[in-house]
Amino acid sequence: MNLSNYLAGQWIEGSGPGTPLVDPVTGDELARISSDGVDLKTALEFARAQGGPALRQLSYTQRADLLAKIGEMLSANRDEYFRLSLLNLGATQADASFDVDGALYTVKYYAKIGRALADGKMLKEGAAASLSKTGVFAGQHFLVPTKGAAVFINAFNFPAWGFCEKAAPALLSGVPVLVKPASPTAWVAHKMVEDVVKSAILPPGAISLVCGSARELLDHVREEDIVSFTGSADTAARIRTHSNVVHRSVRVNIEADSINSAILGPDCAPGSDLFDLLVKEVLKEITLKAGQKCTTIRRVFATRQTLKALGEAVSARLSATKVGNPRNSEVKVGPVVNKAQQSACLEGLKKLRSECSVVFGGNDHFEPVDADPQKSAFVQPTLLASNDGLASKYVHDVEVFGPVVTLVAYDSLKDLVPMVRRGSGSLVASVFSNDSSFLQEVILGLGDLHGRILAVDSSVGAQHTGHGNVVPSCLHGGPGRAGGGEELAGLRALLLYHRRFVVQGPANCIKELSGLSADTNLLYS
Amino acid sequence: MNLSNYLAGQWIEGSGPGTPLVDPVTGDELARISSDGVDLKTALEFARAQGGPALRQLSYTQRADLLAKIGEMLSANRDEYFRLSLLNLGATQADASFDVDGALYTVKYYAKIGRALADGKMLKEGAAASLSKTGVFAGQHFLVPTKGAAVFINAFNFPAWGFCEKAAPALLSGVPVLVKPASPTAWVAHKMVEDVVKSAILPPGAISLVCGSARELLDHVREEDIVSFTGSADTAARIRTHSNVVHRSVRVNIEADSINSAILGPDCAPGSDLFDLLVKEVLKEITLKAGQKCTTIRRVFATRQTLKALGEAVSARLSATKVGNPRNSEVKVGPVVNKAQQSACLEGLKKLRSECSVVFGGNDHFEPVDADPQKSAFVQPTLLASNDGLASKYVHDVEVFGPVVTLVAYDSLKDLVPMVRRGSGSLVASVFSNDSSFLQEVILGLGDLHGRILAVDSSVGAQHTGHGNVVPSCLHGGPGRAGGGEELAGLRALLLYHRRFVVQGPANCIKELSGLSADTNLLYS
Repeated sequence: MNLSNYLAGQWIEGSGPGTPLVDPVTGDELARISSDGVDLKTALEFARAQGGPALRQLSYTQRADLLAKIGEMLSANRDEYFRLSLLNLGATQADASFDVDGALYTVKYYAKIGRALADGKMLKEGAAASLSKTGVFAGQHFLVPTKGAAVFINAFNFPAWGFCEKAAPALLSGVPVLVKPASPTAWVAHKMVEDVVKSAILPPGAISLVCGSARELLDHVREEDIVSFTGSADTAARIRTHSNVVHRSVRVNIEADSINSAILGPDCAPGSDLFDLLVKEVLKEITLKAGQKCTTIRRVFATRQTLKALGEAVSARLSATKVGNPRNSEVKVGPVVNKAQQSACLEGLKKLRSECSVVFGGNDHFEPVDADPQKSAFVQPTLLASNDGLASKYVHDVEVFGPVVTLVAYDSLKDLVPMVRRGSGSLVASVFSNDSSFLQEVILGLGDLHGRILAVDSSVGAQHTGHGNVVPSCLHGGPGRAGGGEELAGLRALLLYHRRFVVQGPANCIKELSGLSADTNLLYS
Repeated sequence: MNLSNYLAGQWIEGSGPGTPLVDPVTGDELARISSDGVDLKTALEFARAQGGPALRQLSYTQRADLLAKIGEMLSANRDEYFRLSLLNLGATQADASFDVDGALYTVKYYAKIGRALADGKMLKEGAAASLSKTGVFAGQHFLVPTKGAAVFINAFNFPAWGFCEKAAPALLSGVPVLVKPASPTAWVAHKMVEDVVKSAILPPGAISLVCGSARELLDHVREEDIVSFTGSADTAARIRTHSNVVHRSVRVNIEADSINSAILGPDCAPGSDLFDLLVKEVLKEITLKAGQKCTTIRRVFATRQTLKALGEAVSARLSATKVGNPRNSEVKVGPVVNKAQQSACLEGLKKLRSECSVVFGGNDHFEPVDADPQKSAFVQPTLLASNDGLASKYVHDVEVFGPVVTLVAYDSLKDLVPMVRRGSGSLVASVFSNDSSFLQEVILGLGDLHGRILAVDSSVGAQHTGHGNVVPSCLHGGPGRAGGGEELAGLRALLLYHRRFVVQGPANCIKELSGLSADTNLLYS
């Protein structure tokens, strides 16, 4: 079976043998994809010329209504996305839910909050400021939807959510989208786009799909377009330095690697409620999606005297956790996405082991449940420990994109904050403590280098939303090595798809333009 | 005389013969600059380690007070900056005022509006949103000053304003600055920094100065730093693709070329008030700073039937305008900044002439008043006309950075908007018309590709603030070829120097952090 591309309002198969999609548990080929020979330039032109104007003649509310319909329609097909997630990603029910239900929730969330923008065609920012003595001449800032297309080059770990969390705010903004899912796991996104197209909810040109290589796609982007990429720092660098992207100052949003941290406060002794909550969180982060989340905890910081107890507590839980074929209902941890990722994990693990001790796992030849180790792509959940985080290099720098976490000892705030900052910019750090001044100092010490900080004390307990869980009302992204991009954060996500400009003009003219506009205050509420 | 660098709290002369600063009227050497051999890495480290923390232990109000003192001190030395502007830029009084008085005004403006942020140490964005049923766990977005340094690589045309319009919001944000003025005109900025250092208003490390080449400066920037560049698209591309900048996702703000437009509405017949206002504006734009403003009008669009009258009106004024040595009080137009710029202008002019007719000027060998054509760097104010803007290439693409403007004929809105958009992203467009629907359609047709749109009707008349005048309360910047950066726009300028992050945590913890924060609503007012 070949999965087609959807371009310029037509399904079109790529030429050549294509790239196989593989079941990472059985090694079986599932389908093939190819973008060879398809006309990417015309596809973008069609999106800009047809999809954009059709979307932008609607108001924000009308586009929110389209999202609501898409959300409903996708929900009706939820089982099929779960089935494909199992096949193409080796996803457990929990894994599939995290991706697919996250996607559905996000679309519905934007459908709901988008209505707040009402009948606006653009956004008015702040008040009009008089620029003349009589007040007849004034200045007013606006945000207006860009007249280009949004190109999404997505990561393999979230084929559903990665597509929906980007497409929802873009479409709500009135900007057509072209999605290029990561090749190895393109099936789920392909199916979702197929369902969206079939439903005919969106106007022609509002959505396009490239399955396979992005080929020379970036040669065709323009000043009005947006490129949003999630994936490796290497590919991010290639996109950022692409000559056409640079030459035209194409707006690029990047979400890349991140060596995220969890921190256990000095006040949290073994056996305390927060100690137990952290252990639970670490276990969830190692096992869910086999650690293949950009937000996964990679480093856990605990005081030197707590490190051993922490290692024992996590190990005890890990040793009771079944890893293998998710078709077996006892299995809690599935494979990584393919053999190439398995190799990359083992290579990274080797680097980490060169400066860390192994607390649990680390067996390159372990036996997954109900799966052939030769054909499948499993990595044993592994817990490492570092007693010398300040001198460590790889711990702060190598992202093993699998079920691997390193415990790092700290002695005081004075060495903790610089060690966490060695991650050079991360998506998220979480901190567990009942010492409110410790929480505050950690937050102020890390905030500028993180997109999100999760703080948990006993008053919050199990009510926190999770270290790795991306809530659409809150910022997702991070500076530095995390790519410097910003996603979600409620209606702030619309900023990426709008352009700020100021009108200096007659008070009447500004009043009329303001009458067409919703208020940007709504973006930051 | 050698102008020194100010790095890590010390004045230090570069080694080697250095680069001469030259009087563009006489060709005389004025001074020399060199950054050879100075330690740029340590300078940035000193700024981050000393300047940043010292600035950030102050509140916004306290930093605004520092700016007020700097503004006062610089004002006291205004005459000296005018003197150096004449020597190093060949600036007329009006030219020097545009740069120097603009700089002083901007510093004082930020001193004034910065006080609104009061005792805050960071900024709270929007309200806390509950993330749990009991409300004990909530999410709150903050903007926090980055813990890095701000590196300014500035343009030759605004040595004073370019320094101050960037430094004021950075310092107000609590971020230390390192300024590298453009080499040919470094003297004015050097003198200003010298005066700031002498005044001891700022804490050590808050300001640094590199005169001469930026050398390997970008090898030393980090995730926490900001690079803000104003200048050519070529240099902008080199900065954007610099491996360390890319690898660390260093935040880069670019303000580059821009083929700005002025539009005369179809309703504005020759002799009407708006026709005359446009003529006046075009003349100002050609003559002021000899057309060397990034916001200067490069293209003037008028209906086919008005073009000839417009050309005659502008030509009549130009022929009465004296060009030459600004020491002669009758002279209204000075030189471009040096021989290299003169050559670049003449080369660009040649390209424009290949597809345009000459309405006025265009004499490569014209005689400036009181100046030797061999030694000086003058370009004759030149007016061109294009009757086929849709087929033109250079008109929309070649920025002659001097006193050169092209008139372009249009027939209707349908060809006007696409022609203006051929600029591929500009800083500013201005539109003169009493037809309110024409104004609105032009604004909505161009807004997403421009940073600023100036609209003038008869109710506004001469009260408008000017096409080329950058008002600190309004956005300066533009998408696409204009670089994609954003500057000024009141307190929005602080966004560049802050990082957005979200705290998900106990309601009490968020309340305490909010207590340290001013409200971001103030940024958008």
